Amino acid sequence: MTREQALAALGRAVLSTDPDITASYGFDQSRFTGRAVPSAVLAPSTTDEVVSCLRVAAEQGWTVVPRGAGSGLSGAANGDADTVVLSTHRMNSIVSIDTVERLAVVQPGVVTGELRTAVAERGLFYPPDPGSVAISTIGGNVATDAGGMCCVKYGVTGDFVLGLEVVLADGRVMRTGRRTAKGVAGYDLTHLFVGSEGTLGVVTEITVRLLPAPREPLTLVATFGSLAAAGEAVAAITASGVSVSMLEIMDRTTLRAVDRMTRMGFDDDVAAMLLVQSDASDAAAALAEVEKACAATAVDVVIGDDPAEGAQLLEARRQALPALERLGDWLLDDVCVPRSRIVELIGHIETVAADEQLTIGVFGHAGDGNMHPTIIYDESDPASRAGALRAFDRITGHALELGGTITGEHGVGRLKKSWLARELDETAMAVHRAVRAAFDPEGRLNPGNLF
Amino acid sequence: MTREQALAALGRAVLSTDPDITASYGFDQSRFTGRAVPSAVLAPSTTDEVVSCLRVAAEQGWTVVPRGAGSGLSGAANGDADTVVLSTHRMNSIVSIDTVERLAVVQPGVVTGELRTAVAERGLFYPPDPGSVAISTIGGNVATDAGGMCCVKYGVTGDFVLGLEVVLADGRVMRTGRRTAKGVAGYDLTHLFVGSEGTLGVVTEITVRLLPAPREPLTLVATFGSLAAAGEAVAAITASGVSVSMLEIMDRTTLRAVDRMTRMGFDDDVAAMLLVQSDASDAAAALAEVEKACAATAVDVVIGDDPAEGAQLLEARRQALPALERLGDWLLDDVCVPRSRIVELIGHIETVAADEQLTIGVFGHAGDGNMHPTIIYDESDPASRAGALRAFDRITGHALELGGTITGEHGVGRLKKSWLARELDETAMAVHRAVRAAFDPEGRLNPGNLF
Repeated sequence: MTREQALAALGRAVLSTDPDITASYGFDQSRFTGRAVPSAVLAPSTTDEVVSCLRVAAEQGWTVVPRGAGSGLSGAANGDADTVVLSTHRMNSIVSIDTVERLAVVQPGVVTGELRTAVAERGLFYPPDPGSVAISTIGGNVATDAGGMCCVKYGVTGDFVLGLEVVLADGRVMRTGRRTAKGVAGYDLTHLFVGSEGTLGVVTEITVRLLPAPREPLTLVATFGSLAAAGEAVAAITASGVSVSMLEIMDRTTLRAVDRMTRMGFDDDVAAMLLVQSDASDAAAALAEVEKACAATAVDVVIGDDPAEGAQLLEARRQALPALERLGDWLLDDVCVPRSRIVELIGHIETVAADEQLTIGVFGHAGDGNMHPTIIYDESDPASRAGALRAFDRITGHALELGGTITGEHGVGRLKKSWLARELDETAMAVHRAVRAAFDPEGRLNPGNLF
Repeated sequence: MTREQALAALGRAVLSTDPDITASYGFDQSRFTGRAVPSAVLAPSTTDEVVSCLRVAAEQGWTVVPRGAGSGLSGAANGDADTVVLSTHRMNSIVSIDTVERLAVVQPGVVTGELRTAVAERGLFYPPDPGSVAISTIGGNVATDAGGMCCVKYGVTGDFVLGLEVVLADGRVMRTGRRTAKGVAGYDLTHLFVGSEGTLGVVTEITVRLLPAPREPLTLVATFGSLAAAGEAVAAITASGVSVSMLEIMDRTTLRAVDRMTRMGFDDDVAAMLLVQSDASDAAAALAEVEKACAATAVDVVIGDDPAEGAQLLEARRQALPALERLGDWLLDDVCVPRSRIVELIGHIETVAADEQLTIGVFGHAGDGNMHPTIIYDESDPASRAGALRAFDRITGHALELGGTITGEHGVGRLKKSWLARELDETAMAVHRAVRAAFDPEGRLNPGNLF
């Protein structure tokens, strides 16, 4: 079969081979990860069509990059010039919501926020809320094991995935996992796929567990005269053992950027802000404990009882990256360190920013030790570009030195491919290669990504 | 090297080759899973010694069965006559407990209950509490992804495992996972090992996350005139969305057996009992809601405020299996169904018991839909033995029909090896074989187990 015949055989599953269209499917939202134009974009609507796509790809020797919404931040959906992209955006049905068993079955192209809304209408709660929640898809969230602001209490995407339907590189279909609360029949292939960044197969259906809807959260805002003071408060909150449902940090750079965009009127004197929520039945007591933990280093602590105000503050935090984007070109890091090392990490970021004379906005999921230092630079200036990369490397390297990881929730993709072997040992890397080969012996899925 | 030279080279890592001693290392606590006498028992004390053991085994072509405390209930530690057992019982150090990051690093031979006590002394909590908690080891718990009574609120062993050190079949050592709250660098090999029943490698160190110690729980006891009535109460409790930290069930057979052993004075009229605990800050409100959910079908509901009484009831539940053991030979099942199907499962078990004229004690983790029907039979009577096996098969098969799994927490081992292919599809089975081969191409680890 010629390439043209093969594409014709795929029929409506082919979205386009027009470079003007395929070009926009060749990259995600990351920087420094390349922008090749895919040779074709496939957009199957059913599992059967995914099977056909992967069978034809195998026959034709195409390499395939599975793609969700393209909202990733590590280049894990980026391919090379000869790549065929397989987008799951047409597989966007919520198959079922079971209010008795509290689980939902969804196709991978369902937008995460839409699932959250759909289950909320039935009094249920799907906690994972990555920053991209309004645009990213469950399939992409599964591929990266996406996190978000909920993690400090509820965990990451993988903690809610019970089972999967997957199409393997050769077109075979398999189911993993279960619909029960527990189950240990065989290897945990479900969580091997979670976070595998499209290298092991194409996920075509996801069963997620849901929780009863929590109470409307109470919100605490604490402001600090220095980033270090905020870091110390995070350590104190963590040490207190109090359970909160959100514990986020924004530094002065981030706050100013958000304020410029949203006109929320943040005080210019504030060097850092913590946003803390509790959705527990004893939320008031929990936030009182947080207040106590902040007392030693905070300038001001306010516990709000207006849910609308809480939602507005949350939205401000959600706008951190979009707001920082307005300051210039940006390179976003995603490191996670043991919670007690946040103060050191923050101190290091400040040193790096000073050394490289760069603006680095710091925000992130302080409660998890998961920070997103965002380096602002000028893409058109080679020196600035080089400085940004140096800063990125220094911060990522320092996170490893602090006992942390190179990626808390964004994934490895192309951006941190060279870093993976710095975090993992030689045997673990060899095992990664062996596992990948066991699923995809010809190396057709997402080559050039992850490792 | 001759076999004798090889054993000599392993020095003190060899526990014994005397059949009188090795015989007791050839099986776990399951029935119908064979009792071959291992040719040798190795008991390494360090990771280096594990490496030596596995290297020598590879050179000599020995098959190796990794073993924890031998408290398993599926025969996953059972081998064949030419098997060498590798017991981790000498690797029993708690390496460190980090109260700031709330994690512990332990060797696999640490008894689970001892870890729980050690961290409790520091105000921390390691939730997993399999029935065997007083004797089973963390390594075995990891190998089977052990559950327990905590799961309804806290999840299973795997939910607390952050990272591992593992020795592969060829003696290579690797580390998986992390010490941070989040992390997505590479495949989740940690959870591929959790529940892999010793087929992928020997776990030599485990990093577990800990929680702040919860409050002393409040306990509710509800009694019912029929097992079905108790099952309906479980469904009502689940539907209410109330969060409890324990939700256990015992039927009349189990209660009588426990009473005979413990003289706790359970009423003979009671057909089933639910034991419910909440360790939340609003425990009283939670149990009030449970009481409401039980009201329609319970004979009696008592909420106790005496922690000692609660602990005593918990101990009664812990004695369910030892007590049933006294009734005769027993064959223990471990099925998990969607929580809304518990009533159907229980009804089916009663039918099977009547059909086969067997006593089947029912107890288990009702809150997870994870039941342990325990078939009492007479090993010396072939007809009784055959009836027990038929009953076992019918119950396990029915759990699958109800959308459940063949094993909630005990694992597949040898007992349910033939069942795995009934739960998983053909492709999933092929992938299991490929993954196993990627880790252990010569099939030396725990052959004859799992699949």
